Amino acid sequence: MKPLRIGLIGYGFMGRAHSNGFRKVNNFFDLEYQPVLKAICARSEDKAKSFAAKWGYESIETDWRKLVEREDIDLIDICTPNNTHAEIALAAAKAGKMILCEKPLSMNGPEGEKMVKAIEKSGVPNMVWYNYRRVPAVTLAKQLIDEGKLGRIFHYRAKFLQDWTISPELPQGGTALWRLDVKAAGSGVTGDLLAHCIDTAIWLNGSFDKVNAMTETFIKERKHNITGKVEKVGIDDACAFLARFSNGSLATFESTRYARGHKALYTFEINGEHASIFWDLHDLHRLQYFDHRDQGIVRGWRSIHVTDGDHPYMGNWWVPGLQIGYEHTFVHQVADFLRGLGNEKPASPTFRDALETQYVCDAVLKSAKSGRWEKVKKLK
Amino acid sequence: MKPLRIGLIGYGFMGRAHSNGFRKVNNFFDLEYQPVLKAICARSEDKAKSFAAKWGYESIETDWRKLVEREDIDLIDICTPNNTHAEIALAAAKAGKMILCEKPLSMNGPEGEKMVKAIEKSGVPNMVWYNYRRVPAVTLAKQLIDEGKLGRIFHYRAKFLQDWTISPELPQGGTALWRLDVKAAGSGVTGDLLAHCIDTAIWLNGSFDKVNAMTETFIKERKHNITGKVEKVGIDDACAFLARFSNGSLATFESTRYARGHKALYTFEINGEHASIFWDLHDLHRLQYFDHRDQGIVRGWRSIHVTDGDHPYMGNWWVPGLQIGYEHTFVHQVADFLRGLGNEKPASPTFRDALETQYVCDAVLKSAKSGRWEKVKKLK
Amino acid sequence: MKPLRIGLIGYGFMGRAHSNGFRKVNNFFDLEYQPVLKAICARSEDKAKSFAAKWGYESIETDWRKLVEREDIDLIDICTPNNTHAEIALAAAKAGKMILCEKPLSMNGPEGEKMVKAIEKSGVPNMVWYNYRRVPAVTLAKQLIDEGKLGRIFHYRAKFLQDWTISPELPQGGTALWRLDVKAAGSGVTGDLLAHCIDTAIWLNGSFDKVNAMTETFIKERKHNITGKVEKVGIDDACAFLARFSNGSLATFESTRYARGHKALYTFEINGEHASIFWDLHDLHRLQYFDHRDQGIVRGWRSIHVTDGDHPYMGNWWVPGLQIGYEHTFVHQVADFLRGLGNEKPASPTFRDALETQYVCDAVLKSAKSGRWEKVKKLK
Amino acid sequence: MKPLRIGLIGYGFMGRAHSNGFRKVNNFFDLEYQPVLKAICARSEDKAKSFAAKWGYESIETDWRKLVEREDIDLIDICTPNNTHAEIALAAAKAGKMILCEKPLSMNGPEGEKMVKAIEKSGVPNMVWYNYRRVPAVTLAKQLIDEGKLGRIFHYRAKFLQDWTISPELPQGGTALWRLDVKAAGSGVTGDLLAHCIDTAIWLNGSFDKVNAMTETFIKERKHNITGKVEKVGIDDACAFLARFSNGSLATFESTRYARGHKALYTFEINGEHASIFWDLHDLHRLQYFDHRDQGIVRGWRSIHVTDGDHPYMGNWWVPGLQIGYEHTFVHQVADFLRGLGNEKPASPTFRDALETQYVCDAVLKSAKSGRWEKVKKLK
Repeated sequence: MKPLRIGLIGYGFMGRAHSNGFRKVNNFFDLEYQPVLKAICARSEDKAKSFAAKWGYESIETDWRKLVEREDIDLIDICTPNNTHAEIALAAAKAGKMILCEKPLSMNGPEGEKMVKAIEKSGVPNMVWYNYRRVPAVTLAKQLIDEGKLGRIFHYRAKFLQDWTISPELPQGGTALWRLDVKAAGSGVTGDLLAHCIDTAIWLNGSFDKVNAMTETFIKERKHNITGKVEKVGIDDACAFLARFSNGSLATFESTRYARGHKALYTFEINGEHASIFWDLHDLHRLQYFDHRDQGIVRGWRSIHVTDGDHPYMGNWWVPGLQIGYEHTFVHQVADFLRGLGNEKPASPTFRDALETQYVCDAVLKSAKSGRWEKVKKLK
Repeated sequence: MKPLRIGLIGYGFMGRAHSNGFRKVNNFFDLEYQPVLKAICARSEDKAKSFAAKWGYESIETDWRKLVEREDIDLIDICTPNNTHAEIALAAAKAGKMILCEKPLSMNGPEGEKMVKAIEKSGVPNMVWYNYRRVPAVTLAKQLIDEGKLGRIFHYRAKFLQDWTISPELPQGGTALWRLDVKAAGSGVTGDLLAHCIDTAIWLNGSFDKVNAMTETFIKERKHNITGKVEKVGIDDACAFLARFSNGSLATFESTRYARGHKALYTFEINGEHASIFWDLHDLHRLQYFDHRDQGIVRGWRSIHVTDGDHPYMGNWWVPGLQIGYEHTFVHQVADFLRGLGNEKPASPTFRDALETQYVCDAVLKSAKSGRWEKVKKLK
Repeated sequence: MKPLRIGLIGYGFMGRAHSNGFRKVNNFFDLEYQPVLKAICARSEDKAKSFAAKWGYESIETDWRKLVEREDIDLIDICTPNNTHAEIALAAAKAGKMILCEKPLSMNGPEGEKMVKAIEKSGVPNMVWYNYRRVPAVTLAKQLIDEGKLGRIFHYRAKFLQDWTISPELPQGGTALWRLDVKAAGSGVTGDLLAHCIDTAIWLNGSFDKVNAMTETFIKERKHNITGKVEKVGIDDACAFLARFSNGSLATFESTRYARGHKALYTFEINGEHASIFWDLHDLHRLQYFDHRDQGIVRGWRSIHVTDGDHPYMGNWWVPGLQIGYEHTFVHQVADFLRGLGNEKPASPTFRDALETQYVCDAVLKSAKSGRWEKVKKLK
Repeated sequence: MKPLRIGLIGYGFMGRAHSNGFRKVNNFFDLEYQPVLKAICARSEDKAKSFAAKWGYESIETDWRKLVEREDIDLIDICTPNNTHAEIALAAAKAGKMILCEKPLSMNGPEGEKMVKAIEKSGVPNMVWYNYRRVPAVTLAKQLIDEGKLGRIFHYRAKFLQDWTISPELPQGGTALWRLDVKAAGSGVTGDLLAHCIDTAIWLNGSFDKVNAMTETFIKERKHNITGKVEKVGIDDACAFLARFSNGSLATFESTRYARGHKALYTFEINGEHASIFWDLHDLHRLQYFDHRDQGIVRGWRSIHVTDGDHPYMGNWWVPGLQIGYEHTFVHQVADFLRGLGNEKPASPTFRDALETQYVCDAVLKSAKSGRWEKVKKLK
């Protein structure tokens, strides 16, 4: 196996999820490459050391620019807040490193375009961590759609519901809560949660044509963790939008952090001429499938326990009936990335693929302001 | 339509359920006969009058012997406690009336045999109200099994769980609580709840070969409503048994009134070589079906919403998606009884059919005492 | 009991559902009034006779104007296509009859205003059959909201999904399929299905402020049953809209007849500060409830089997665990209407209440054309 | 961190599951010890090498006796077929190694007693891999029971259903299918699947008093992979038993490999005076909980998504709503074992704890032959 030397920037939730993916992938997948945990970069030396010790990174850096320049690093993995992705990616591209970037790609479409331009110029392998494509049940959905099992698509509906920011006492900003700070995050649920829904939708249902959105910020002011002052909240707490896809289907999307009772309820449903599909992150190992071609009296929604050897990725894990979890999506994404190295068809989504999601987010936020339909910019 | 003049004995829960069946059946089913609510009999004149007014019975009786003798009555419907079924049925048979009897048929097998003998001698149409055969989803299960969709049967498991007698303060006996009084009920959950499970099982899976049971009475003494004294509880609060069927399948049955959280959870599951079936009274309009012959990657339990026009009985009700409830099983049973009049194949279960369930109950109670396997008497 | 003499116009699906309600209500509810099935009116004498025989109507009419004039009729029940509601209601109001009208009230808001004006001038009791308010689980939801269990409401989402018009071979128009004919129905899913969702939403969540909608007609032409020609389809096959309520909550609504796998999937969910509620017509006897005030480690969505004696309406039916069905909502609505007679607070929704739903539908259809937010006219 | 040098014997399904546990535990748990993958032992040198490469073992052995003697090994982990556990454990105990043993502990009670005696004589830390105790939802169940939330227990019911041996073409014996060979496995579903159910039941509900069982072998003969001949099948394909616990509760247990539609459906339910609990391996991240002390109108089964930071083990993983899978139970078991080293209370189940399960299995198999109740030997 060829070593692939990883330099990770960021040590939060995603830093852990990615590191776990790098560490486990070769235990379960036969691959040409083996990730080597070369260096972790964090501004705090203590945190970097602690993370390195826990995960087995060989070295640390406290300045990401140094990491990017190191010759013993093949791949830069960006796990920092959204407002830092572009700068790091541009530098890494310039340094000729492969780049993995946590989602969303960028703060907005124009920034994303610069990143795509730079990375394509440098020609390095790249990928954005839209990990839900690698839930076996979601990958199975893709497979069924590609086989034509659904026929013409009439409807797509997705939502991503959470309830963790209902308390007005919750502050914004800083290391832990940067997702609530518009300066670091760019937007609220749109970039954080709907971006996932949009990425999956593009993958499964093709391009968006236009959108019509509304957003809301329920709690108008929160204390800021860094300034210590009560400041206006700039993010969207909730966002819902209507959409029309290029294939003629109608869609509804919704996300909020104010849906009491839901922790991370990402669901999507697709209704086709012949069959329908439903999936739910809270039971991610199942796919609901309805096929109208079944005999009438025994027609019903099938609850598929996606744990058989012939289900996507599952032949690499345990035995039928034994479910995997959230973290495995990152293992699969690493596996696919490594399989894609040197192949004609690299693992998706690339930076370019992920730019399309930025265009949709831009149109959504624009529509929420204009109160009317906004066309989605086409990806070239 | 020919009138069929009903004389109902008993005015409790079942008196209401049956009356509703008689009143509604012709609104929804095209039949040759029309039940006419001729008379209701109750020992209390006030209660009889009140019931007659509510349901539209033309007259009342306070002595069931008089009712049985009335010439303007075609059919006697027995809705009284278990210990009175035999006496009434024998008199009604002698008087040449058709007889419907609430389940269980009798206090035990030998008593049931006398009833069957008498009624078959008189040659009158007869039926026992094992109403769950007429839940559309259960009837669909029967249809699927008869079509051979399941193949060889390996396993049958049924349970009927309730939780309404957990309080030691609950008294036993009298009008409302005769089911807790062994003198009136004969047994506890065995005759009350397991009898339903057994009847369905015989219908779907054929004859029992032998059983091995345990019973328990958790609350040993309760105040008696009639005597006013604290008396020993004679019924079984819970009963579970292993069984072997004549077709070689293995089975487990369980019933209790001490399963916190379950109101009337009657469920059964059948595992066949090719397919399996599951049903649940708490969602009685659904049937769960798994067919191994489905394509592997999309194999799963199908949740069939049994509300289509081609599902059993459902073409007579509303439109797809609109569920019916518990009471409709009695409407169906009346419809089937009326359809069976004058036909070669009368509606099931007849008294003879229902005697088989008594044999199983007898063996269960015997085994609970002996602590070993007991053979089930064969129905001739 | 006082007789209340019913004159029914129309003999279709709703004619049956209402008749069943009238016939059953006194068997299960103690009321001052008793509906008497006096006359059924249909243009076809044969159909009127057949319906009368099946349901026990004493007489028939073939001209609704004659029925409205009959002195032996107290109440006119309108079960005809939407485009006839206004004319009949105006005549019945003039004749001083009580009026029950199938939903939606009218073809549009202005027509509804005339109806409300006329009926309020005549001062007769009136009600529109938005029957889902009387599903016990939905009534329970209303009770929980009124008790303040949810706190401030953040989100409301509803959908009503069907799949019965996917085939292009299905014709439009005539007796059976007037719902597909824009001239008879006024609109497609908006007036047929979303009207239900809107009525429930107003009841549970208060007034709409504004809406932003899209509609689609997937099959552009269908053969017309009456003209025999292939004609343009004028109805909306699907409609989705964003909404903002006066209480500050955000909402999404969607309806379609192209959602493969769903027969009549009406669902709604409400997310409040403290608690959330979910309901689903396919399992109408259950209410899902999440209460954040539960102890953290045992917090979860509760599946409430709404069949206990202390649940709305359920004390009048069977015993805990035994579910009722779709048709019972009409029985409840009759019971409530009869209870409201002579009381200060009549049963809801009255014609005036139902007019508010027309205003929302009008705004939805207007927005679907304008592509922007439309304010909902306020009910005075 | 102190290194703990692992010597693993066996490279199959369990060899992988345990290795993954050893490798991951320090990434997620703060512990005093760190497992070091020192050596893997397999009879086939190729397989040992391949496994070592995949999992990062430093060395290999092909004779387990050599491994047991190696001075650079602290802990022997036994992942071989059941009939080899005793011999290896006795040798390892003699060599003073810590021992982890895959379940079931032994072929039967007497053999298990020898193992317990030897290991307790040597005084080394030991544990048996009954991993389902470490499913967070199951651990939560234990916590709720220990807190007294359920009150007096009335009922316990468990089943473990699979469907992978229905085909008569499936051979028995050899590396992959030793579980079907009675000489290697000792029994069929009893030792393989029911042993899990029994271990959990003892943990949650205390000791068994007596059992009454039936077993069945549906396919009587299968080709043997090693001898190549069609041989009699000696294992039980299915086993069901009634049980009484020392706490007075009644129980039913069932396991089969002939339940079409179920891959690994291990479920248990416990009904207490105040509350009930249900769990299901197919959705292992959920616990169903019903509490009768909830307000009546909103009482219902709660579906607890066991993914919050205050749920057992879950604070060490991701964020609320993101589920873990099967393999994590082994990580938790390693963590608990390491935490127990040097503590007064070692991680359960120890060899002695696991011996109790053998006693139950022995009584079950004895009862299946005798056809009557058999007392379970008490653990001293």
